[in-house]
Amino acid sequence: MLNFEFLSPTKIFFGRGVENQVGDLLKQYGATKVLLHYGGGSVKRTGLFDRVVDSLKAAGVEFVELGGVKPNPRLSLVYEGIKLCKETGVDFLLAVGGGSVIDSTKAIAHGLQYDGDVWDFFCGKATVQKSTPVATILTIPAAGSEGSNSCVITNENGNIKRGCSTELNRPVFSLLNPELCATLPKNQVANGASDIIAHAMERYFTNTTNVDITDRLTEGLIRTVMENAPKCYKDPSDYEPMAQLVWCSTLAHNNILGVGRVQDWASHNIEHELSGVYDIPHGAGLSIIFPAWMKYNYKHDIPRFCQFANKVFDITIDPFDMEGTALKAIDALEKWYKSLDLPTRLSEVGIGEDRLMEMANNVKKPNGDGTIGGFVKLSSEDCYNIYKLAL
Amino acid sequence: MLNFEFLSPTKIFFGRGVENQVGDLLKQYGATKVLLHYGGGSVKRTGLFDRVVDSLKAAGVEFVELGGVKPNPRLSLVYEGIKLCKETGVDFLLAVGGGSVIDSTKAIAHGLQYDGDVWDFFCGKATVQKSTPVATILTIPAAGSEGSNSCVITNENGNIKRGCSTELNRPVFSLLNPELCATLPKNQVANGASDIIAHAMERYFTNTTNVDITDRLTEGLIRTVMENAPKCYKDPSDYEPMAQLVWCSTLAHNNILGVGRVQDWASHNIEHELSGVYDIPHGAGLSIIFPAWMKYNYKHDIPRFCQFANKVFDITIDPFDMEGTALKAIDALEKWYKSLDLPTRLSEVGIGEDRLMEMANNVKKPNGDGTIGGFVKLSSEDCYNIYKLAL
Repeated sequence: MLNFEFLSPTKIFFGRGVENQVGDLLKQYGATKVLLHYGGGSVKRTGLFDRVVDSLKAAGVEFVELGGVKPNPRLSLVYEGIKLCKETGVDFLLAVGGGSVIDSTKAIAHGLQYDGDVWDFFCGKATVQKSTPVATILTIPAAGSEGSNSCVITNENGNIKRGCSTELNRPVFSLLNPELCATLPKNQVANGASDIIAHAMERYFTNTTNVDITDRLTEGLIRTVMENAPKCYKDPSDYEPMAQLVWCSTLAHNNILGVGRVQDWASHNIEHELSGVYDIPHGAGLSIIFPAWMKYNYKHDIPRFCQFANKVFDITIDPFDMEGTALKAIDALEKWYKSLDLPTRLSEVGIGEDRLMEMANNVKKPNGDGTIGGFVKLSSEDCYNIYKLAL
Repeated sequence: MLNFEFLSPTKIFFGRGVENQVGDLLKQYGATKVLLHYGGGSVKRTGLFDRVVDSLKAAGVEFVELGGVKPNPRLSLVYEGIKLCKETGVDFLLAVGGGSVIDSTKAIAHGLQYDGDVWDFFCGKATVQKSTPVATILTIPAAGSEGSNSCVITNENGNIKRGCSTELNRPVFSLLNPELCATLPKNQVANGASDIIAHAMERYFTNTTNVDITDRLTEGLIRTVMENAPKCYKDPSDYEPMAQLVWCSTLAHNNILGVGRVQDWASHNIEHELSGVYDIPHGAGLSIIFPAWMKYNYKHDIPRFCQFANKVFDITIDPFDMEGTALKAIDALEKWYKSLDLPTRLSEVGIGEDRLMEMANNVKKPNGDGTIGGFVKLSSEDCYNIYKLAL
C-alpha cells in the first residue's frame, strides 16, 4: 500500500425526502444568494424544481436560476453561469441534477473566484486556488460528482472533453434521495450503472501490491451494482435497489476505493474522446471501451484478472488455464452490459473507422512520456488499437 | 436502507513517516498551544515522543505534556488533563497512542469547553455542545477512535465504563503510520484485531433489510482483517499486513459500514462491564462475549448468519441445514480468535460466576425499555444468560 492522504468532507443527507431541507441547510451553511443550476425539463416536470424553490423561499434564501445543462456539459454555459453569478452577487451554488449539472456547477464555482479563463483549469494552464461553495441535489446515480474531486467539461470549440481534479471540487453537502431517480429513462439508469462500475474498475486495475482492503471494498461495490442495477433498469421506481445504486455512485468516486494505490484511468480518457467527438453518453462509451481495454491489457497481470473473475463474478479460477479464467471475466462483464442493453461495440452506436486515429492522438496522456494509464502505459498507437478492437 | 446522514471530516495522513509533519500540520490548523497526551513508556522508548517534540519545536508550536493514560482510560486523568489545559491555555490536543489515549484526549477536549463535570456526557446528564480540536498519531490498530464519533471512559468510582457518542468526537486530522505499530506486543495486536472485527460485526447484525452495499463492504473488511491479523500477530513489523490492519481499524468505526441500518452494540456494552469490573483488555472481552452473544441470538435471523458464514468464511450454505451453517460460522469465528491466542471463555481470564448478575444488571441499556441491542433486544436476564454461556 502506498502512502496517501484522504478527506471526504462532503456531508451526505441520504434517503426519502431529504431534498426538502435544502433551504434550511443552505441558510445554515451561510448562503445568502444561490445559483440554482439545472438541466432540461425533467426537474420541472417532476415538481422537484418547484419544491426546491419553495424550500429556498421558506428559508429566506435568495436565488437566481440557470437551466439548460446538457450531457457532456458545455463550456459556453459555464461562461454564462460565471457572468450571471458575478452580476447578481451569488455566493453559493446549488446543482439540481446529475453529473453534468454538478460538473457545470463546479466549473462555475471555480470561474467565479478566478480572473482568467476558467478553461485554464481544464487544459492544464492553471490550478484552482479558491472556489465558491457548492451543494447538490442528485437525480441520477452515475458520475459520483456529488462527492468527488472530479469535474469534466466539454469545450465546443473543437469538441474537447477535459477533466479537472482538485479537492476544491468536493461539494459542501449533497442531498441524495433515491426517490428522485424513480422517473429516470431506463437507458440513463444503464449508462449511470456503467459509469459507477467504471469508476471502481479504474481503481481496481493497479500494479500496487498489498491492497487487500481496497480490493475487497471495490469487489463488494461492483457486486452490489451488478446485482442491483438490473432491478433499477427494470423499474427505476423500485426504491431499495435504487438506494443501493445511489450510494454506490458516491462511494465509487469519492476515492475511498482508491487510496494507497496507483490508479489507471486510461479507459475514461479514451472514452472522453468518443463522447466528446460523437456526443454519445459517457456510460455507453465506457461499456464499449472497457472490454476492449481489458482484452488489450489483461496479459499484463492475469492473476489480477483471475481475482476479478472470482471475486466479482464467482468464476472458479482454473489453475491450468489462468488466461481462460481472465477472459471469462471480460466475457461476463460484456454480458452484464448487454443485460442492460448497453452497447459493447462502436458499430452499435454508429461509429466507424474514419476518426479513430485522430481521437487516439487527441486522448489526454498525462503520464508525461506521451502515454496514459497507471496499469499499462498506453501510447497513441495503443489507444488506436483499443478503438479498433472496439469496432 | 434507512435514511441517514454521514460525514467523516477527519483528514487522514497514511503511511511511512507521516507523523513527522505533525508540527507543521498543527500550525497550519491554527494550534498555538498543544496538549501532548500519551500513555506509558512505549512512545518514549521507541523515540516517537522525541520526534513529535522535535516536530512541534521546529514548527514553533508550544506544548504541555501529560502521560500516564492506561487501557480503559480513567476519569481521574481526564480531570487532571482538563485542569492542566485550563491553567496553561491549551487550544489544541494531540493524542499520541492508541484508543485509550485518544479517548482520554477527546474527553479532555470536551471538558475544556464545559463548566460542569465532564462525566455528565458519559452518564447521560448532558450532551456535548462544543469541543476543542483534537489530532491523533495512532500507535495501535484497534479502537478506530482516530476517525470515530466514539469515546469511552472508565469512572474508577464504581468501575463504570461508559461511552459518549457525538460528532464532536471526530478528530480534525489523524496520522496513521503502520511502522509505529512494529514494536507492539503480540497480545495487543490480537486484542486490537478483535476490536476491529467487533466494530464491523456490531453493524453487520441488523434487522434492516436491503443493505447490500454496507453488507458487502463489511464482509470485505472482516475478511481483510481475518487474513492479515495473523500475519501481524506473527510479526508486527511486517509493514504491508499491518497497513491493512491500520486502515481497517479506521474504516471499521468511522461508520462508513454502518450507515442506513439499525446497528446492534449489545456485545460492546456487555463487554464494557467485564473490562470495567475486571480490567481485562477490551479486545479479549469481545472475543469472549461475541461468540456467546451469537450462540444466544443466531436463531433470530439464521439466513443472515448463513450469509456471514458464506461471505466471510467461504462456508458453503447447506440448504438442508441452515442452522448448522450458522453454527459453523460461530465455530469459525472462535477458531480465528484462538489462532491469535485470544480467550473465548471467561474462565480463561479467571472470571467466575460470582459477579455475573451484578454486571448483567449494570449493562447500559439504552433502548428505553430496559433492554439493549438493535438486532435482538436483551434484558438484564438475557445479559446474564450470555455471561453464563461465556463461562
